[in-house]
This record gives sequence, structure tokens and C-alpha cells, in this order.
Amino acid sequence: MNQPSVRRVVQLLTRLPGVGERTATRYVLHWLTDGGNTPLELAEALTALAQSVVPCEDCGNLAERAPGGASLCALCMDSRRDGSVICVVARVQDVSSLERAGTMRGRYFVLGRLLSPLEGIGPDALPLARLQAFAAKHGAKELILATPPSVDGEATALWLKREFEREGLSITRIASGVPHGGDLEYADPITLGRALQGRRTL
Amino acid sequence: MNQPSVRRVVQLLTRLPGVGERTATRYVLHWLTDGGNTPLELAEALTALAQSVVPCEDCGNLAERAPGGASLCALCMDSRRDGSVICVVARVQDVSSLERAGTMRGRYFVLGRLLSPLEGIGPDALPLARLQAFAAKHGAKELILATPPSVDGEATALWLKREFEREGLSITRIASGVPHGGDLEYADPITLGRALQGRRTL
Repeated sequence: MNQPSVRRVVQLLTRLPGVGERTATRYVLHWLTDGGNTPLELAEALTALAQSVVPCEDCGNLAERAPGGASLCALCMDSRRDGSVICVVARVQDVSSLERAGTMRGRYFVLGRLLSPLEGIGPDALPLARLQAFAAKHGAKELILATPPSVDGEATALWLKREFEREGLSITRIASGVPHGGDLEYADPITLGRALQGRRTL
Repeated sequence: MNQPSVRRVVQLLTRLPGVGERTATRYVLHWLTDGGNTPLELAEALTALAQSVVPCEDCGNLAERAPGGASLCALCMDSRRDGSVICVVARVQDVSSLERAGTMRGRYFVLGRLLSPLEGIGPDALPLARLQAFAAKHGAKELILATPPSVDGEATALWLKREFEREGLSITRIASGVPHGGDLEYADPITLGRALQGRRTL
């Protein structure tokens, strides 16, 4: 299994989260031996995918390519969403996660990346102008900063707060604490510290 | 994420062992958002793979396509292998597993499938004639049946034994028992039964 064509596919697959060389090789062997024509079928499906899915021009979510028009995602095309609340997330995946919670009736904006001094990602790499235009277009009153509670996520949230508080918007941050069903015994000290700090009057 | 192009790739990926709809969707989202051109790169790599890898004409292992000649795998082209011992396995993957053990100096033959009455796979679907030609070509004296110790694997081994004992070959079966480092406490009754039945004098 040392052919260049095999090694190339394995190398591309190992970029996936949780996929090492062993799993990637297992995938390739499965495709080569499942009796069908899977490598070619998958190649065609991936080409179609690359051609039909693009970032939403408004919010950065995934959208279907609209030839000759603006490619907008399903959420941006849904006029029933409440434009006065905009939830800012890091990744496309986070939109579906929050949608599953079923409590967000507002709109989403996908940054695509977070500030990261270690990786050399500064404010210039973030779509600030697009977010400002998006907030203005929808007459936003509240910006919910839903970047992850990590070092980069917190830095990005703080930076966004400073950029937008000038504009008179209400800026909120999602709560961080012990997850539902979680055990205090297994929560890390930072999570417990945040759970205490973020306590509410009952 | 309900576009047909996304659903098609997800559907193809869920054919992989251990990959459900959730993992497949995670893979697709990663490819769409990793900032590169991964879907197209992977499509090209898979096309190259499909064009360059074919079954070995002799033993059924994977081989590099040889335009205008016989496509033989690296093991079949290695003249140092001992043709008097042929190890019969179910899948291409099993060849690398056994090679890793480092004790097989003979040749391999890959059946590609096992007898399976439940899935309607009968003897006609197995490459018996090719195996007979392979054994004759290499002057085989022993056939090691290394199909897995499952219902289908045992049925296939028994059937091969009946087909080949007429030909005066020595037919052996790999041992089944408690694996190295395994605990008797956690071994299932069938495995323990086989370990007892296959006991050897020390």
C-alpha cells in the first residue's frame, strides 16, 4: 500500500479531525475493495460539492451557489428570523449546534476564524466590515458573542466588544459553566470558577 | 446542510466502517471550511487512485495498474517468496496484518469474499479456478486457510478443504484461541472452547 496515489489520498484524509494514518488507510482499503466503484463515485460527488456549496455572501454560513445572483444561505433567506439579535459564531458547525438548541430566533454571523496571536491571526484577518454591514442591514440591537470559551474565543469576544460598543449595541456573551448533566466532580477548575463567577440570583 | 450535493457525499461516506451520518457530516463540514480547496483536491486524488490501483491478476491483492502488461502486486513480483506455502485470506487488509506478524514467508491468495448463505453468496461467487491455477503455478504443497474464525470464515475454510484435499495438498487452518495479552476473564465462551480444543502438548 505504498503507491503514490494511495499515499496522496491518505495524506488528505489525515487532515480530518480524529483521523490518523491508520484510519485513513482503512478508509482507502475499504473504498478499493468494497466491490463497487466508490473512489470514482466519491470523486464525482466531491466535485459536485465543491461546485455547488459556497460561503453565504451575507453571513459566512454555507450556501448553495446561485449562478448570476447573490449566494445566500437558508437562514439569511428566511425573512421570519429576528434581525435585531445577531449571534456571532466562530465556525459554520456552530450554527447547526445552536439551531439544535431551538432557542435562537435571531440571525447568525460566522467569523470563519478566531483571533490567535500564536498562529499569527490578527484583527485584519477577521471579517469586521462585513459584520458591521450585516448588523446595520438588519438593524441589530443585540450582538450575542458565541465564540467558544477558549483563549482565542475569549480574545475574539473581547475584541468584538470593544469594536461594537462604540456603535451603541448591547453586547452579550454566552454563559460558561458546568454543562447540563455534568458532574461537579469531573469539571475542571476553570469551568467551576466560571460557573461560580457567572452565578445568578434565583 | 440539506443540499443534495452534501447529502450525496455524506451517503457515500457512511458506507465506511465506523462512520455514521454524524461523523460523515463532520467530515464534509471540515472539508468545506478548512480554508483550502480540499473537496476538489480529494476528488482528483480519488480519481488518480481509481485509475492506478487494480486487483492483482494472480492473487487478488492490490496492484499498480501496468498498462499493456499483467498487473501484479508487489508480493507476486517478489521471487523470494516461498510458493510451496499459500496463505488464503478473505480480504486485502488481511495480507498486511499477516505480513506485520513477520512469520509468513509463503505467498498469499485473496478470496475477496466469503461464503455467506445469509447474503446469498455461494461457491460460484468465489475464485476457485483462479486459486487452483495459482496453487498449480507455484507448486503449492500447503494451503493455510486464514479466513476469519467467524461463521462465514469457517464455512469457507471447510468448503476450501473439501475442494483441495482431492488434490493431495496439505490443508491447515490458523489457530483460534485467547489472544496474546488477553485475559481469560474477558474471553467469550466460544473463544475459550476453541482455546481448549486447540490445546497443544508442551
